[in-house]
Amino acid sequence: PVRIDWHADQVEKGQFEHFMLKEIHEQPLTLRNTMLGRINDRDEVSFPELAPAAGAFKDVEKIFIVACGTAYHAGLVGGAMIEKLTRIPVQCDIASEFRYRDPIITDRTLVVVVSQSGETADTLAALHESRRRGAKVLAITNVPTSSIARDADFVIPTMAGPEIAVASTKAYTTQLLAFCLFSIYLAQEKRTLGQKLHAELVQGLKALPVQVEKVLENANEVKLFAESIKDADSLFFIGRGLDYAVALEGSLKLKEISYIHSEAYAAGELKHGTLALIEKDTPVIALVTHMELYEKTVSNIKEVKARGARVMGITVEGNVELLNAADEICFIPPSLQLLAPILAVVPLQLIAYYASLALGNDIDKPRNLAKSVTVE
Amino acid sequence: PVRIDWHADQVEKGQFEHFMLKEIHEQPLTLRNTMLGRINDRDEVSFPELAPAAGAFKDVEKIFIVACGTAYHAGLVGGAMIEKLTRIPVQCDIASEFRYRDPIITDRTLVVVVSQSGETADTLAALHESRRRGAKVLAITNVPTSSIARDADFVIPTMAGPEIAVASTKAYTTQLLAFCLFSIYLAQEKRTLGQKLHAELVQGLKALPVQVEKVLENANEVKLFAESIKDADSLFFIGRGLDYAVALEGSLKLKEISYIHSEAYAAGELKHGTLALIEKDTPVIALVTHMELYEKTVSNIKEVKARGARVMGITVEGNVELLNAADEICFIPPSLQLLAPILAVVPLQLIAYYASLALGNDIDKPRNLAKSVTVE
Repeated sequence: PVRIDWHADQVEKGQFEHFMLKEIHEQPLTLRNTMLGRINDRDEVSFPELAPAAGAFKDVEKIFIVACGTAYHAGLVGGAMIEKLTRIPVQCDIASEFRYRDPIITDRTLVVVVSQSGETADTLAALHESRRRGAKVLAITNVPTSSIARDADFVIPTMAGPEIAVASTKAYTTQLLAFCLFSIYLAQEKRTLGQKLHAELVQGLKALPVQVEKVLENANEVKLFAESIKDADSLFFIGRGLDYAVALEGSLKLKEISYIHSEAYAAGELKHGTLALIEKDTPVIALVTHMELYEKTVSNIKEVKARGARVMGITVEGNVELLNAADEICFIPPSLQLLAPILAVVPLQLIAYYASLALGNDIDKPRNLAKSVTVE
Repeated sequence: PVRIDWHADQVEKGQFEHFMLKEIHEQPLTLRNTMLGRINDRDEVSFPELAPAAGAFKDVEKIFIVACGTAYHAGLVGGAMIEKLTRIPVQCDIASEFRYRDPIITDRTLVVVVSQSGETADTLAALHESRRRGAKVLAITNVPTSSIARDADFVIPTMAGPEIAVASTKAYTTQLLAFCLFSIYLAQEKRTLGQKLHAELVQGLKALPVQVEKVLENANEVKLFAESIKDADSLFFIGRGLDYAVALEGSLKLKEISYIHSEAYAAGELKHGTLALIEKDTPVIALVTHMELYEKTVSNIKEVKARGARVMGITVEGNVELLNAADEICFIPPSLQLLAPILAVVPLQLIAYYASLALGNDIDKPRNLAKSVTVE
C-alpha cells in the first residue's frame, strides 16, 4: 500500500487565514492522494488494503451505510453510487438511530461506517452492534490507527491528512471519492459495470483534482454572495437526487460556522410545507447539476422566486440558461453525474467560509462544537 | 365494508374558530372510525377492502413507503411499525426523489403510497413508476375515489372525513393508525407476531381515542408555551427513534402555519453541527416517549440546556423526573412505544395552532401553500 506520512507543516496554516480555508484549498491534493495506487494501468480499481479480503464482498445482499454529521452526508452520496453501479440495495442510517432501531442484519449484510476521526462514539457503537449481529463491517476513515479502523473487518483509509478545522471539508470530499472507488471495485467483483461507463468513470475521477482547482480559482464568484447573506435569518438549500445530498452538506457547513439557520430540502418537497417560510429576499441556494432533472428543479426555483426569494444557482459550465430563473450563478466544470457532488460542494464550502468571515466568527473553532464527537 | 358518509356539517367549523382546531379535536372520532370494522371479535385485524386480495402479501420481500410532506412523515412511523412486527425490510422515500432514483424493484416488492387527497402529483407518478417496474402498490388515502386509489392494486381508506385546513392533522393520525393496523395484518399473514404483543397492541389501539381526548383536555398545558415562542427566530424539535419521526411532523406543522423556521433533529445528531445554532432562550421541544432511550435523550437535552436553550419536554405521564432536565413538561398517557406517536403529535399540533393564533396568521390557509399538491 502507498503510504502517505503526515508532516508537521500540514498542521500549520501557512499562507491561509484559517485552517478551514487551507483545507478547502488542499482538496486537489487530497483527492490525488486518495486515488494514488488505487487505479491500475488497465484503469481497474484495486485497494491494496483489501487484497487479503479478495472475494469477501461477493455474497453481499444488502448494505447499510452508517455515520454521523458530514460523514453521514457523504454516505448518502456513496449509497447512491453503490446502488447505481452494483444494484445492491443500500440504506443509509444516522449512527445514533441505527444502533437502537433493531436493524435487519444477516451474514450477507455489509455495514459501511464512515468517520473522519475514526473515534465517533455512536459510529463505533454501531460498528460493534453490526458485528455482534453477524454483519461484515467496512470502515472509511481518515485515521487508520483509530478505534473504528481497528475494530472493523476492512478499512479504506481516506488520504485527507490531518483536518484541524472543526467544519469538515477535505475529509468529506475524500470520503465521496473513496465511496466512488469502492463502488467501482464492488461492481468489478459483481461484474455489473459496463466497459463504457467504467472507462468514463475512471476518466472522470482522474480529471477531478484539476477541476476542483478550477472551482477554487473562481472563489470570488461566490464570495460576494456569501457576504451578502450574513444578516439573513433563514436560508434554504434545494436540489434533487445527488444535488439534494450535497445541499444537506452545504447547509450543515453554513450552520456550523455562520450560525445562520439554514435547511436543505429535496426541491420537490418544498411545496409540501416549507414554501410558507419563503418571503421577500430569503436567500435560496439551488443545486442544478442533474441535467436530466433540470426542468423539474427550475420549476421549483420559479416557485421560490415567485415568493420573492433571491436565488443563487450552482450549475454546470455552459448552462447560462439558468440565469432566466436564478439571480446569480456559480459554474462547476462538467462531470459525470455521480462525480458532480465532489465539485458542487466546493462553492458551498466557500459560501460557508466567507459568510462566517464576514460575520467575524471563530471559523476554525465554532461555538458549542467539538472536532471529534467521542460522546454519545 | 363499513361505509362512512361525509356530511355537510363536517365542512363547517361549528364551535371552533378554525377548521384546523376542529380537525384536531375530531381525532378521537376519526381514529374510532378508522378502526371500525377492522378488528374482529377475536382481536384479529382484517380489512374488508383487502379480502379479495387474501394472501397477496405472502411473498413480499421488500417494502417501499413513498409519499410527500406530512404523509411521508406518517410513512416514517409506519415503516418502523412494519419492520418491527414483520421483519420485512422497509425503506421510506420522498415521492419526488423516488421517481427519479432508479429504485431496485422486483415482483416481490410492495410499494405503499400515502396521500390524504389521493391526488398528490409526485406520489401518483411514483405509483405508476412502481407498477411499471413490477411492484404491487397499496394506497393509504383519505379519498377512496381519488386517482391514487383508482390506480393502486390495493387501497386502505383512512376515515378522517373531509380535511379542510391546509395543515394536515386528523389525516396524519389516521394514516399512523392505518399503518399500525396494516402492520398487524401483515404480521398475522406472516405469523411473525407473538400472541402477547398482538393482544397488547390491539388493546393499545382501542384505548387511543379516549387517550387522545385526554391529551386534548390538557390543551392549556401547551397553549402558554406556544404563545411564548411566537417571536422566536428559530426553534428545534429533537427526539430519538419514533420520537424523531414525530418531531419531523411537529416541525413541519409549525413551519406551515406560524412561518417560524423550525427544524427537527435526531437528538444524537445535534452535536454534529446544529448545536452551534443553540443560544440563550432558543426554544427546543424534546420528545421523550421512548423510555428505553430516556437517559440518552436526557443527555441531549442537557447539551442544549448548557447552551441556554429553553426546553419543553413531551413525555409519558408519571415521568416527572424529566423536570430535572426540561423547563416545562407536557404529559401524554402511557401507551405501547409503537402507538405513542399518535398521542405525542397532538400537543405538537396544538403548539403550531396556538403559536400561529398568537401571531394572527391565516391558520387554515397559510401563505404560499395549497391543500393538495397536484403539480410536480
